[in-house]
Amino acid sequence: MAETTAPVVDVPALTTFLDGTYAEVRALTRKRLVEYADILTDARELDRDKFRERVKQVVVELAATGQTGLGFPVEYGGGGDIGASIAAFETMGFGDLSVLVKVGVQFGLYGGAILQLGTKRHHDKYLAGMVKAEVMGCFAMTETGHGSNVQALGTRARYDVETREFVITTPDDASRKDYIGNAAAHARSAVVFAQLEIGGASEGVHAFVVPIRDGRGRTRPGVRIEDDGRKIGLNGVDNGRIWFDEVRVPRENLLNRYADVSEAGVYTSEIDNPDRRFFTMLGTLVQGRVCVGGAAINASKVALSIAVKYALGRRQFGNPGGPEELLLDYGLHQRRLFPLIARTYAMHFAQEVLAGELHAVFSATEEVDERTRRSLESRAAGTKAVGTWHASETIQECREACGGAGYLSANRLDALRADTDVFTTFEGDNHILLQLVAKGLLTDYSTSFGELDQLGMVRFVAGFAVETVLERTAVHKLVERIRDVLPTGDDLGDPEDGLLDSEYQLAMFRWREEHMLSGVARRLKRGMDSDMEPAEVFSRCQDHVIGAARAHVERLVLEAFVAKIASMPESDNRTALSMLCDLYALTVIEAGRGWWMEHGRLSSQRAKAISREVGDLCRRIRPIAEDLVDGFGVPPEMQVAEMLDPSTFGPTDHEGTR
Amino acid sequence: MAETTAPVVDVPALTTFLDGTYAEVRALTRKRLVEYADILTDARELDRDKFRERVKQVVVELAATGQTGLGFPVEYGGGGDIGASIAAFETMGFGDLSVLVKVGVQFGLYGGAILQLGTKRHHDKYLAGMVKAEVMGCFAMTETGHGSNVQALGTRARYDVETREFVITTPDDASRKDYIGNAAAHARSAVVFAQLEIGGASEGVHAFVVPIRDGRGRTRPGVRIEDDGRKIGLNGVDNGRIWFDEVRVPRENLLNRYADVSEAGVYTSEIDNPDRRFFTMLGTLVQGRVCVGGAAINASKVALSIAVKYALGRRQFGNPGGPEELLLDYGLHQRRLFPLIARTYAMHFAQEVLAGELHAVFSATEEVDERTRRSLESRAAGTKAVGTWHASETIQECREACGGAGYLSANRLDALRADTDVFTTFEGDNHILLQLVAKGLLTDYSTSFGELDQLGMVRFVAGFAVETVLERTAVHKLVERIRDVLPTGDDLGDPEDGLLDSEYQLAMFRWREEHMLSGVARRLKRGMDSDMEPAEVFSRCQDHVIGAARAHVERLVLEAFVAKIASMPESDNRTALSMLCDLYALTVIEAGRGWWMEHGRLSSQRAKAISREVGDLCRRIRPIAEDLVDGFGVPPEMQVAEMLDPSTFGPTDHEGTR
Repeated sequence: MAETTAPVVDVPALTTFLDGTYAEVRALTRKRLVEYADILTDARELDRDKFRERVKQVVVELAATGQTGLGFPVEYGGGGDIGASIAAFETMGFGDLSVLVKVGVQFGLYGGAILQLGTKRHHDKYLAGMVKAEVMGCFAMTETGHGSNVQALGTRARYDVETREFVITTPDDASRKDYIGNAAAHARSAVVFAQLEIGGASEGVHAFVVPIRDGRGRTRPGVRIEDDGRKIGLNGVDNGRIWFDEVRVPRENLLNRYADVSEAGVYTSEIDNPDRRFFTMLGTLVQGRVCVGGAAINASKVALSIAVKYALGRRQFGNPGGPEELLLDYGLHQRRLFPLIARTYAMHFAQEVLAGELHAVFSATEEVDERTRRSLESRAAGTKAVGTWHASETIQECREACGGAGYLSANRLDALRADTDVFTTFEGDNHILLQLVAKGLLTDYSTSFGELDQLGMVRFVAGFAVETVLERTAVHKLVERIRDVLPTGDDLGDPEDGLLDSEYQLAMFRWREEHMLSGVARRLKRGMDSDMEPAEVFSRCQDHVIGAARAHVERLVLEAFVAKIASMPESDNRTALSMLCDLYALTVIEAGRGWWMEHGRLSSQRAKAISREVGDLCRRIRPIAEDLVDGFGVPPEMQVAEMLDPSTFGPTDHEGTR
Repeated sequence: MAETTAPVVDVPALTTFLDGTYAEVRALTRKRLVEYADILTDARELDRDKFRERVKQVVVELAATGQTGLGFPVEYGGGGDIGASIAAFETMGFGDLSVLVKVGVQFGLYGGAILQLGTKRHHDKYLAGMVKAEVMGCFAMTETGHGSNVQALGTRARYDVETREFVITTPDDASRKDYIGNAAAHARSAVVFAQLEIGGASEGVHAFVVPIRDGRGRTRPGVRIEDDGRKIGLNGVDNGRIWFDEVRVPRENLLNRYADVSEAGVYTSEIDNPDRRFFTMLGTLVQGRVCVGGAAINASKVALSIAVKYALGRRQFGNPGGPEELLLDYGLHQRRLFPLIARTYAMHFAQEVLAGELHAVFSATEEVDERTRRSLESRAAGTKAVGTWHASETIQECREACGGAGYLSANRLDALRADTDVFTTFEGDNHILLQLVAKGLLTDYSTSFGELDQLGMVRFVAGFAVETVLERTAVHKLVERIRDVLPTGDDLGDPEDGLLDSEYQLAMFRWREEHMLSGVARRLKRGMDSDMEPAEVFSRCQDHVIGAARAHVERLVLEAFVAKIASMPESDNRTALSMLCDLYALTVIEAGRGWWMEHGRLSSQRAKAISREVGDLCRRIRPIAEDLVDGFGVPPEMQVAEMLDPSTFGPTDHEGTR
């Protein structure tokens, strides 16, 4: 470590830089988290029912401060700023995650559905009470037998023209609403997704406001609710199952922004294609995915802050006579934690781009074209998938890196890990989301094909000449740029040349993405040409489809990181972030080196040089590791961990021992 | 899937084959688990104190049946069969894991220490009460500041020649005993590891029996105990912290099999070298590691049984008009689960070899040479590390593969995942264990160097010519055998030739192990030659050291699987296991293909052929997937999972839909 002068990190400036446009909102949210820091203890010590009530109370109190309503129109008590609302939610990822998810259910899912799918009559009737959390609501989409394939929901909403009501029914147990947050105890109102039936004809899935409890908390007639019981985590959120037995709601309870039913039972919509209509409705709910991804990335920051500090306090083995070595001075420990710090920074900046795009689209005063919306949905899906997997992996690694101390609930890694675990599943299963990303890339987000299901996509891609598919894709345009930058494995001179050049790194990422995507297109076509069933064709290519989507997202993440650094003036902070960006890019290439070597884009000498460079980067990052996690700005109160008590572990050696 | 005739698996015969020598003990243990199946519900529903008491009660009742004492001498109420005791413990990995771990603490750690480190006076005094669980005990080794490096423990045991007592003291909070199972509530007795001091001289770490509570459960004078509180899992086990303030025990309480102190305070031991003495003592406790690894592998079986059945009940997307596709018919789902089934079988057979070796060594009537013991300890360490990581990865993947249903505690994956999580940490942190494996390989388990710490190892390896090191190693002898079998990447003809030949697969595994190990030796030597500090040399090579050890263990696992299949007569079950063995071997090569390509042992064409073959194998395994998990013989009562209710999900289609 003596060979390089480490940059001197300006920690407050780094935090401000990360906080970006909404630094003030984030600062205020941190303040609130600290005020409510006791909830972290409550999460461990209260029994489930009491903890649920406590979480509800916190949510209601936060609502009163305006913290949770930032994204709603001012006339209904909101803040009128979508970007601010995302920043606030992301920052709540530092705190108790039951509170976070309950906020997400009430304001993001329930409130968001009414805002986005409803019209003025719904806004006037529901939004003010929702924003104040006077009325708690739930978002009843998922069913026990139908999660990812929402178009196949079983719940029915039959229009009764006589009474001008919709009659909501659960036909079987596979169609019971399940895992619905706020349902088991607190919600009085539900947005229910159901198959609309008029005069025996099905019009597809639509959303309805359905009262499920009265003002005294009693379940309404025809509604049956069961508690989902204990879960791996998030036990402060009351998830439940709902059955509807001929529950009647007035015609006006259809959330009718995209389709309506007249009193006489005539169905109308401005969107003719029912698939397109359905996906347009779903697309308006994209904010939930953006929020979950952002919160997951912030939860990773908490875990890394704890693990790095633990490793700066705990010693193990070492030279006889002298003090034992700090954990963080072990090469393996650095290799375990530092690439995760680097990826957390990378994901942070990718998330910042995404949140900015979302704000732009949803705050636009003019109509946004559909391709832009589809591209946003794809980016949200991909970032959510990669960000939540990142959180699972990071928090788990931090737990293991803290040994037995990491297993104690007092040290927060328990709650972080258990609570975030379902993030990979809810708001869209990650694998399904990556398929959505791949579909967008293969069909160029075209309006006419965006609604295709997976088998439709197979038929579409196979139905065109592969080259046509590729010509259509945005990624194809990258290839020209790449050819000059990226030599083949054989052409390379010194294997270490250019490893730290972001143009080289980006070219590698882009080349992989383009190659995987065109490979998928060719395989789909070949499969269909061989008379295989579309389902079989898809099944056989599925891991390739997912891989291509993941490569795409990783390219976006690296581009975001590189662009962010390019925007900085020269400074030690910029130097520090550049090291992290290199570490992110090179660990991705190292992990996937088999693929690049298979495809002749990486020589074995260069692959080995990359592994050496990763080790070097880790050693160079070691002296600033604590500053880099402090830069995340996780309030100390959110890092509560008995194991950090310095009197127990001896003085922290911030400079390292070597 | 129509292209190959699937083998017809004889499930009961497969289970019998897996159960092996101790089929009867395993059957009896399954029966007991079913009798106590209610504990799985208790684990979710009782509060922590009640659940602890319930777990204690179950342990006491099991002790009365003889279930838990199989490994102890018959004269103290045991079963006198070490192999049987391991089989019984492993099988308990299907059930509640708090019960398992409490059994491990009482009989394995506490009882095992008295048996192995004590002499007849201790056996006569303690074993009968321990076997009946009349006296609960704990194993007080780990301290808050000292876990992996047990030689650096801070607790002191000073011999007071006046009173002929040892005086046990905790000098500081870093030296408090921590994470000690049975300590917070139930243990009356502790085996305490402490630095023995006689007349101001230190004799190193020794073990002492120390009463910590009286018959009425009150803490004894000078002993302070704190509860470790809530943990990620295993909340039926009462872990705690212990401080000793000048606690006096009679001289006879030293467990004196390997060293003794006379009344006059003269220290004697048959083993002169203090390091060697210490590691000999530790080595006798190897059974704990063997048991943990075996239980982890069995916990994986439960998770896979649940996930495969869920995927045979749950449908998602598919052809319009027809029923949706079963999850298990998706290529990605197969890719996620089947390699884990294959690795579970592989680990099972590797564990069987290990348990057999342990039984042989510990049941031997003649003295076993030290090299054999060291080799056993290394194999135990490696199998425990790889087996427990396998469990963490498998259970997590199963949870995600079951989506939201997997997040509900009712479906067992919660408990399996949370309870096994610490398995990677306790009984030796996995990374430290793999370093132990590497040390054994680099020093050929030599008696004179086996006690070296990591820096000693660096100095030793570097102090000899590298070739000498390699000549010494067992693995070196493999190389000759390999050269003929394993062509270089360039020599290969048809890239698919021989992929399913176990000789090819083994040669690949062996070549990697040998190459990584010699590479580590060279790097250590180069580092020392360059005048780097040993700590720095080690730190820089650490991931390479771990990688070499892991490659070694993976070779042992594959060898065990191949040998087991070779022992079977031709049958459909043999065909089925051969497919799994190929899948195990090829997924290991696929995951590490970057390494083999870097080293010129795998062409890119062949690497791609391996990925295709993995996909093919998954499709061929699909029709027998349910049989393969049923073959594990996990009692249905241990797979309790609401989500499996067929009325909810429609008929299970055991044959697949295509």
